[in-house]
Amino acid sequence: MAHFNPVTPELVEELKRVMSPKQVKTDEDYLVAYQTDEEGNSHYFSKPEVVVFPESTEQVVEIVKLANKYLVPITPRSAGSGVACGAIPVYHGIVVELERMNKILKLDPDNMYAVCQTGVITGDLQREAARHGLLYAGDPSSADSSQIGGNVANNAGGNKAVKYGTTRHQVYSLKVVTPTGEVVEAGSRLKKSSTGLCLEQLYAGSEGTLGIITEVTVKLYPQAPYVFNMVCVFKTDDEAFALPNKILKAGIDPTSIEFMDNEALVMTCKFLDMKMPHVDEGCDYVIVTVESFNEEESDRKMELLCDLAENNGSIDEFEADKRIWTLRKQFAEAARDVDKMFQTEDFVVPLDKIPDITKQIPELREKYGLYCVTVAHIGDGNIHVLPLNKEGLSPEEWFNKIKAFHRDLFPRVYALGGKMSGEHGIGFKKLDEFAKCTPAPELHVIKAIKKALDPNNIMNPGKLVDMTGDFVQE
Amino acid sequence: MAHFNPVTPELVEELKRVMSPKQVKTDEDYLVAYQTDEEGNSHYFSKPEVVVFPESTEQVVEIVKLANKYLVPITPRSAGSGVACGAIPVYHGIVVELERMNKILKLDPDNMYAVCQTGVITGDLQREAARHGLLYAGDPSSADSSQIGGNVANNAGGNKAVKYGTTRHQVYSLKVVTPTGEVVEAGSRLKKSSTGLCLEQLYAGSEGTLGIITEVTVKLYPQAPYVFNMVCVFKTDDEAFALPNKILKAGIDPTSIEFMDNEALVMTCKFLDMKMPHVDEGCDYVIVTVESFNEEESDRKMELLCDLAENNGSIDEFEADKRIWTLRKQFAEAARDVDKMFQTEDFVVPLDKIPDITKQIPELREKYGLYCVTVAHIGDGNIHVLPLNKEGLSPEEWFNKIKAFHRDLFPRVYALGGKMSGEHGIGFKKLDEFAKCTPAPELHVIKAIKKALDPNNIMNPGKLVDMTGDFVQE
Repeated sequence: MAHFNPVTPELVEELKRVMSPKQVKTDEDYLVAYQTDEEGNSHYFSKPEVVVFPESTEQVVEIVKLANKYLVPITPRSAGSGVACGAIPVYHGIVVELERMNKILKLDPDNMYAVCQTGVITGDLQREAARHGLLYAGDPSSADSSQIGGNVANNAGGNKAVKYGTTRHQVYSLKVVTPTGEVVEAGSRLKKSSTGLCLEQLYAGSEGTLGIITEVTVKLYPQAPYVFNMVCVFKTDDEAFALPNKILKAGIDPTSIEFMDNEALVMTCKFLDMKMPHVDEGCDYVIVTVESFNEEESDRKMELLCDLAENNGSIDEFEADKRIWTLRKQFAEAARDVDKMFQTEDFVVPLDKIPDITKQIPELREKYGLYCVTVAHIGDGNIHVLPLNKEGLSPEEWFNKIKAFHRDLFPRVYALGGKMSGEHGIGFKKLDEFAKCTPAPELHVIKAIKKALDPNNIMNPGKLVDMTGDFVQE
Repeated sequence: MAHFNPVTPELVEELKRVMSPKQVKTDEDYLVAYQTDEEGNSHYFSKPEVVVFPESTEQVVEIVKLANKYLVPITPRSAGSGVACGAIPVYHGIVVELERMNKILKLDPDNMYAVCQTGVITGDLQREAARHGLLYAGDPSSADSSQIGGNVANNAGGNKAVKYGTTRHQVYSLKVVTPTGEVVEAGSRLKKSSTGLCLEQLYAGSEGTLGIITEVTVKLYPQAPYVFNMVCVFKTDDEAFALPNKILKAGIDPTSIEFMDNEALVMTCKFLDMKMPHVDEGCDYVIVTVESFNEEESDRKMELLCDLAENNGSIDEFEADKRIWTLRKQFAEAARDVDKMFQTEDFVVPLDKIPDITKQIPELREKYGLYCVTVAHIGDGNIHVLPLNKEGLSPEEWFNKIKAFHRDLFPRVYALGGKMSGEHGIGFKKLDEFAKCTPAPELHVIKAIKKALDPNNIMNPGKLVDMTGDFVQE
């Protein structure tokens, strides 16, 4: 247990002084609202002592300086759409809610970049780019609510990662308030650089443990005028899982290769009151999206893709309009409708190892008495197995069951060269598992960096790595 | 000045014991051979006290442990093809020459990756990949001599960066011996990950200051069957420099966009005894390479490119075979033939700022009495202005002239949002300039990380950041 000081009336007064009284909330309503993020299991809930709503980088600097002065923990938060308990203030203290910093400061269509404050909603940025014929390629399923700073902090993945990479690959530069209250401009609007350490990639994905991102400069791409979504229908998982590598090797350069198993299709179709082909035959879907700049190129890739799919066991291929993405993206809402405590696994394995891990899932389901549905970004090996609490276990019972499942699952993932998170992060939820599965030298390096950059351990403590024992305060 | 201990006979004996006597060299011939890397100015030369040739990661670990025990500096080196004095042992001590670790341990064509020891020559990896119909996309002009570990350590750029990124983007994972002698596996063979800090990108480009890379797992790509090289001929720089952004926005997705000014063309044609169109008319070249998976796609892109070039002032476009790349890549050799102390500037600016910086070069040439030729990776804003010592100044005079030029040039680059190195690194050569141009908070973070990971400052000291004053030894 880390030793932090409680938030005192004196600190609250100082916070009000460096911002305005309206930006500092200690009402119980606020504290309850900020006791969780997207997490639905009350086991994890933990209330802050104060929630602050800064409106500028300068205010964030002042907050961080006060947190150091009073030795009080900070939990940075934007939309709170994370699913790893990354924005839950596990040691209480101050939640820094960044949603008011929500302006797109600049969008330069000729040079294809945008400068966003951290609280810009991902979907707003996507739409603003589209208005200029451009694409912002970060595309988590939560795009309509998630915010760009949180996307970067968690290195959110999403649905265009096969072609464009994850959120970290969209980043030119970041403005970061360090744990000691300095402002670092990490990276730059450059296509390449060998000037100093690659700090922007260190901050991206660090889950708010190394600083608070207040501004993000992102890359934009030309929007391809020709896009098709092809659904390839499979009777068996194994055939579906063999397809991605073949698509990639053929030079089709797909934007996305997504998988939904039959149970996920049935659940989501029911939730959306949608009827889709082959779902009642027990089939799985592989959804492939391809963007092109030319109609013939698009047609050719479609033909090549259908040939590949047929030669690899697809029983049908049909072109879908973009509503297929509603089906894919609404899947989490459908799961929540069944069970608000649903757990999203997020492990990632090399593409050739997908069958090796997925074939172990039925055994694990049986062993732990879990009902699971599966969707996956199979173009990048990222598998979302979702255990649903259909039996109505208590929060504590469900927590214990999932912990036992993880203890069994993750070593299997790592044995195949995989890792426990492809896009959701470690947060507080997988802290123990991360410490157990990560080799000691890597953990030493991570802890050494954390300690060097956050000497008082005030920046999102209890996330990613547990620094207890590495810090002595008082 | 850092305080290190001298290499004692006792340490040499210990080094021989953890390797074999043949792997430890103290003969004067060796010490002289390792007093420089690609640097030609004797001002920078500095001899090691011992050169060691490890053959395994385990041996590297033992060497690092001894360096810590005796407080002796280590300079890691592979090909020594760097141009920033990164492999010069400025504090003497031990040079760790990794060239014997030169095996491609695995190349998996189905899953498109290779595992290389650090000393694999870049060109060997490219050729081995090509044998399997695959592409290794790291392509520094020094590919025939440079080695993969050094490419990663410096984040080498090269000629395919517009499409594929620089060397850091080719990296799945790295095996790194840390400055304290632990072995970290940074990264993994995964398409995405949000599991812990992004250490592989921290090590990539850290110029050997945070550890010694002993193994690299790289991504491979399908080799496109259709490739064309188009030379667009321009009478003025400004028109040439406006082209890249337009090519990128049109969705042509070029592999390379290179620039050679007329003086560079004349010099290199003379060196190679080559005759090329429009060179004697004082024209510049923009060389655009485009790869496609389909002939019609290739033809269409060629047409589109020629239209764009013509509409933007190109007076001629002609298709070239791959010998055009000989012209481009042999440019450095041509420069060396004129002046072995030639200086390669390597600054990088946002694409829209290329004209703003290049139009200042004539003024600087005049001011410092420099003769310069220019080649540039203009598709990524990376400009190589090469001052040549045509007057035959002494090493010391030339050093002072270049320092004065840098003091004037780099603030202009930074004022445009640029940085001093796109692909060569800071090394020892630009240490002072880097400290001056980098904002204090960024420098604090870099130094804090260095100090945390290399507590005795033994790992390539005097490169990238000067830790003098941050370390006290005895």
